[in-house]
Order: sequence, then C-alpha cells, then structure tokens
Amino acid sequence: MLDTFVVTVTPPEILNLPMGFSCHVSNVGVKDGSRDFTVVASDAPCSAAGVFTRSRFAGPSVEISRRHVADGSARAVVVVSKNANVANGARGRADAEELVSGVALRLGVATQEVLLASTGVIGRPYPMDRIRAGIAGLPVPLPGHDAIDVARGIMTTDTVHKIAATDIAGSRARIVGVAKGVGMIEPDMATLIALIFTDAAIEPPDLDAVFRRVIDATLNCVSVDTDTSTSDTAVILASGAAGTVAIDAFETALHGVLLDLTKKIARDGEGAETLVEVRVDRALDRAQAKTVAKAIVNSPLVKTAIHGADPNWGRVAMAIGKCSDHDDIDQDDVVIRFGDQEVYPKQIDAAGLASLSRYMAGDEVLVHVSLGTGDASATVWGCDLTDGYVRINADYTT
Amino acid sequence: MLDTFVVTVTPPEILNLPMGFSCHVSNVGVKDGSRDFTVVASDAPCSAAGVFTRSRFAGPSVEISRRHVADGSARAVVVVSKNANVANGARGRADAEELVSGVALRLGVATQEVLLASTGVIGRPYPMDRIRAGIAGLPVPLPGHDAIDVARGIMTTDTVHKIAATDIAGSRARIVGVAKGVGMIEPDMATLIALIFTDAAIEPPDLDAVFRRVIDATLNCVSVDTDTSTSDTAVILASGAAGTVAIDAFETALHGVLLDLTKKIARDGEGAETLVEVRVDRALDRAQAKTVAKAIVNSPLVKTAIHGADPNWGRVAMAIGKCSDHDDIDQDDVVIRFGDQEVYPKQIDAAGLASLSRYMAGDEVLVHVSLGTGDASATVWGCDLTDGYVRINADYTT
Repeated sequence: MLDTFVVTVTPPEILNLPMGFSCHVSNVGVKDGSRDFTVVASDAPCSAAGVFTRSRFAGPSVEISRRHVADGSARAVVVVSKNANVANGARGRADAEELVSGVALRLGVATQEVLLASTGVIGRPYPMDRIRAGIAGLPVPLPGHDAIDVARGIMTTDTVHKIAATDIAGSRARIVGVAKGVGMIEPDMATLIALIFTDAAIEPPDLDAVFRRVIDATLNCVSVDTDTSTSDTAVILASGAAGTVAIDAFETALHGVLLDLTKKIARDGEGAETLVEVRVDRALDRAQAKTVAKAIVNSPLVKTAIHGADPNWGRVAMAIGKCSDHDDIDQDDVVIRFGDQEVYPKQIDAAGLASLSRYMAGDEVLVHVSLGTGDASATVWGCDLTDGYVRINADYTT
Repeated sequence: MLDTFVVTVTPPEILNLPMGFSCHVSNVGVKDGSRDFTVVASDAPCSAAGVFTRSRFAGPSVEISRRHVADGSARAVVVVSKNANVANGARGRADAEELVSGVALRLGVATQEVLLASTGVIGRPYPMDRIRAGIAGLPVPLPGHDAIDVARGIMTTDTVHKIAATDIAGSRARIVGVAKGVGMIEPDMATLIALIFTDAAIEPPDLDAVFRRVIDATLNCVSVDTDTSTSDTAVILASGAAGTVAIDAFETALHGVLLDLTKKIARDGEGAETLVEVRVDRALDRAQAKTVAKAIVNSPLVKTAIHGADPNWGRVAMAIGKCSDHDDIDQDDVVIRFGDQEVYPKQIDAAGLASLSRYMAGDEVLVHVSLGTGDASATVWGCDLTDGYVRINADYTT
C-alpha cells in the first residue's frame, strides 16, 4: 500500500562500487573495536555535489566538506564513525583539517579533493594518536571494492546497514548509495550520512541540480524524532568511468536509490517497529502539503497510536489542526484515511474496523489525508514512537 | 534552582471560590462513573475574558465560548470532561448549542452568558440523553463553593488536580485558578482548560489585556509533547464582589496563579517524572529566546537524556543548532549550563560531574542557555520523555 516506486535491491553478499571507485574500511579505535574509519577513493577526479545540515552547531567535517565540494569536484570521501567531532572548538577544527590532509597525502591527491563526514558522540575530541596511526596504515591504492563493507563501516547504532543500487536506463552506468542514521533524524538538507557513487559521466552543475531536487523529495522528507543532526552530510561522486547518461534516466535512477535509503532510514529509526508513510494531497501547494504531513509524522500522539495499532484518527485531526497558519484548511473539507480506509468524515463500521485493525498491526502504515484546499501533494516518511526509543536514548551515556 | 517566583499554595481540604461564585460538580455518565459535568456560576454578571486554541480542528465548545465571551461579559462556565465533542460535524455543533442553552435556561441567565469547555476523546458524539438528564438535575442555585471540587471535576487523565490561589495585594480580593491537562499540550494560545475566578472588580478591556499578557508568559510557555489540543480554553471571570484592585497588583497575583498552574501542568505531563525548566537569555529578542527554549524543551533527545539523568549537553547544542533561521547564533558564543553548572564551552571536571549527576537525578532540572546575541530572555517549562508516556498513549484506545 506504500508508494510502490522502489528500486528493489536485495543486496547479495558482495555488491561492487561503481567503476572507478575503491575503498578501505577499518577500525582505528575511535571508540571501541568496531569499524570506525572508512575511505572511498576514485582513480580519477570526479564530479561531486554535497548537501549539508543547516545546524548552527555544524561540525568541522561539514565545514570542510562544504568548502571542498564547492568547486564541483572531489576524489575521495572519509567517514569517521563513533565520534562526531562537534562542538570541540578550535581543537576540533584543527583535528579535522589534519585528518583530511593526512588522508590526502597518503592517497596522493590534493587536500581540497577530500571530503569528510563524521558521526557519533558530540563534544568529545578525536583520539588523534589512533587516527594518525590509522592514516599511516591505510593501504594504497585502496584494495577493496565492496559497497556493503562501506555501508557497514559508517554505521553507529543502526541495527541494519543501508544500501541501495540501480542501473541507469540506456547506459552501462550504475548508482550505488549507502546511508546511516537512526536518531537525531529530521534532516533539513540531508540525512546524517549518505554517500552516493556512480560511474556515470555527468557535469558538476547537472549533478548538483539533480542531487538537490532528488534530496528534497527523499532524504528531506524523513523524520524519526524531529531532531536535526549537527553532522548531516549527503555527497555524490560521479567517476565518469561508464560514460555519459541521459539526465532524465540518471534522475529517475538516483530518485529510486535515495527513496529506498530514505525508507530504510525511517524503518530503522531508533526503537521503530513500524514504517509510517504520510501522504497529503489536494493541498494548496507542496509547501502546505509537506507542513501538514510533517506535523502528522512528527506528532508523538500519532506515533504512539500507530505503535499501539490504534486507528486513532482524532490524533491525526489534531495534528492537522496544529497547522494554524493555514487558515484555508476547513475541517469540514478534510478527508482522513488509514491505508485506503476512510475514517473521517465517513465513520468506519464494525466490519471495516476489524479489517483496519489487522492493517494497523502490520509493519507499514499509510496515513493519507486530503486537505481540500488545492491540487498539490507531498509524501513523508517516519516511524512509530516506542518504549525502545525512550530506553535507547535515556540509557545512552555521554 | 527553578524560578522562585511562585505563589505558594498548599491547598487545604477545602478552598472556597472567590466571593460571588458557586458551583456544582457531578457525574452524568459521559463515559463512566467519574465526575464529568462541572458548572460554576456567578450571582451577578462578571467581566470575562477568554483565550482559545488556534487549531483548525477547534471544537464547537471553543467556537461557542469565543463568541459568548466577545462582549467581555459572562455569568457561568460549564466543563464537560471525558468527551471533547470535536470533529463531530453539524451534530456536534447542535449538541453543544443545546447543552449551553439548557444550562442557561436552568440557571435563569441568557444563553450568551454561558461559556463551555469540553475535553476528552475526539470524534465521538455526546451521550445527549444523559447530558439532558444531568442538566435537568442541576440544583439551582448551585449549592457548592469548593474550588477543589471544581479542579477535580475537570480532570481526565491528570494524576493530580491542579489549583492555585492568591490574595491580591492592597485589597480584599482573591484569585483562584484551576487547570487540567497532561497530554496534547503545546498550547498556542492557552492550555487545555484553565478556569480562573476572582472577586476583584475589573473592567473587561483591562481584564482581557492583563489575561493575554500573563498567558503569554505562562500557559503559552509550556509544552509536554508538542501536540496542540483542539480544545484549549482559558477563561477568567471577575465577579467584582470584593471591590476594586490596583491593576499592577492584580497582574502580579494573576501571574503567580497561572505560573503555578503552568508548572503543575508540566510536572504532571503524561508519564513525566521530571519538571524541566529551560531558560534562554542573552538573546536577540524574546521571540528568538522562546524559539530556542522551545526547541530544547521539545527535543525528544534532550527529554530522554534528562529522563536518564544524563547531562548530555551535546543534545542541547544540537537543539540550539536546529534553529537554523537564526544565523546570528554563533556556536563559539553560546554557553550551556545544567542548573548553575556550566558544561559548554568550559568542560566539567570530575568533581563537578559527580555533583551534576546528583542534580540531574532530582525531580526538577534547569537547562540554562546564554546565546550571546543580545539581552532578551524567555523561560519555558516541560517534562522528560519516559516509557510511561509511550505506554499511556500506545494503550489509550479510541
């Protein structure tokens, strides 16, 4: 019943990065013995684009990547997991600069060709001695090609790794994307970390425009907990090794990959047991549709009702009602459905309720609202609010 | 450590309404056998003011009270608890009108002198046969004078009744306020239900202006769960039976009563174990301070950290960072404290941490942020996010 446009990817044991890319994933001891240091590099310069958090507490990794991707070109991306290196002042900035130049030197590329993303605890400096040792031990050229390794390397508290891949129609080119993120997820420009690689040849301005358009309809439409990370980073690198592609086909393929990653992030939200899709249509414009959809997907009362498998449309009405700046919304024109079952204004009968109860107990729930103020629509994704979310975040110690 | 300006009220067994008011609280069977029908009336016409939800799904009780209070005068207020009578279309409107005229007829006052507030489940019609019987059985004149009875009569899932009272300096007059509300609490204009009675004589325009100013600094500064009720109603009735008062003294007294009720609402938030006060100062203006304070008090990650007694200032930094429209906020100028202990940028030492851990385990936590963008400030109140909140709202069946 959810949006059926998903690139179906059942990852095999190994899924190669697109042509031109190689990788190395290791543990350097950032926090414990798990993988925490991931490098992906390209044989040749890539077109590149990046979209980042708008947080006023953005970390140095975001500042550096934003600066280095500004010329539309990059050669490598480094991800440090288990430590965000955020709010560490001058020391944090110096550490991040040293890390990026160290990797660039080791790879034999210019410092400004290296992007950095960092995720984990806030306010604790990097263990630079261990990171320096990790950089010195980086095998060059990078020996790996397995994107699943990269997806696993960037995980923090994710319960599953998140990867999506597709071919681009009418070409030999592919897109492979990996992402991480389970909490502090209401991206304003991108999600916590998403790395997208393609061997399509595409010019930087086209890459940037397509990337931003697609992110606006995918990663920017997910919310786990209304909290926006200080470290949101989504970058795409296009090696060109597989030749040119039609822009339309590229955008369709990229949309499929990012939509798949978006749903995987929502489904793996901290403590989540149910993927929630909220579709708002018959709205004045896309902005109104998205505002109302976000109000519903972010309402703790709607999220707990879905956790309790309760078709409590009164809470959906409440969440719509919260959008009080939109005084064209008239409660007598609104229609609310769970799945395809209308629950307001037409009340549900006993037979419908039995069937709806089974639907609500499933692992995907669609809330579908028609506002009656126009013809625009938007879809957003989130998850239920569970005891697990509270336990994970009350017990996580700084 | 929290704001010390609180009117101390340890309610005795009986606390009389101000002069001129009487009441009756009963069960008419709205949902079960508990008290659900409360009427407070005045011997003579009162000055009156009201502040209501801005929800686009506001119920007929809000529509009626808004209309009836518009002339600055009222004689009685009726509260139905256990059923909000929201989103019931034309039938809901007709039922509410019938209820109000029925009570007016029974009390021998004009219909437009009666205000109505209603709270409880959304989308279920009133049991009008039982309500009609309840109105017919209303003893006239109302025999009661105990405000605690009124505070108990308007409760739904509140675990404690909420009442505050004070004398007005330089006069014989008093103010007594009652409130209810545990979930769906981020009032945009008022909280779920607050009824304030005074025997001070005060003209309607003064009453309205003072009431709105005080609510802006009290009830409009509380958030339990970011969800705004369809039924928010705060009304004040001034009988004048105790004569005139100084407006300043009246405003001070009213602020005390509403601040006390505000904190009681936050402390009794659904599942709450800790009262959270967020004070933001050195801000550009009050709006900026309130935006940042609300971002902190509403962050599920901050709320769960406080539940876990964890002084996780990284999450406070994250919540400040979310206010990305405020690009004058510079992370290097921000100071974050729990209680009076600075945690950012000056890091805490081991001795400080031990003392801070004891503080965080208390039942009141102050988050104090200085933004460094100006001289304005704002204070808001909320509560921690607990397993209890999830259980209450996942198990509550429509």
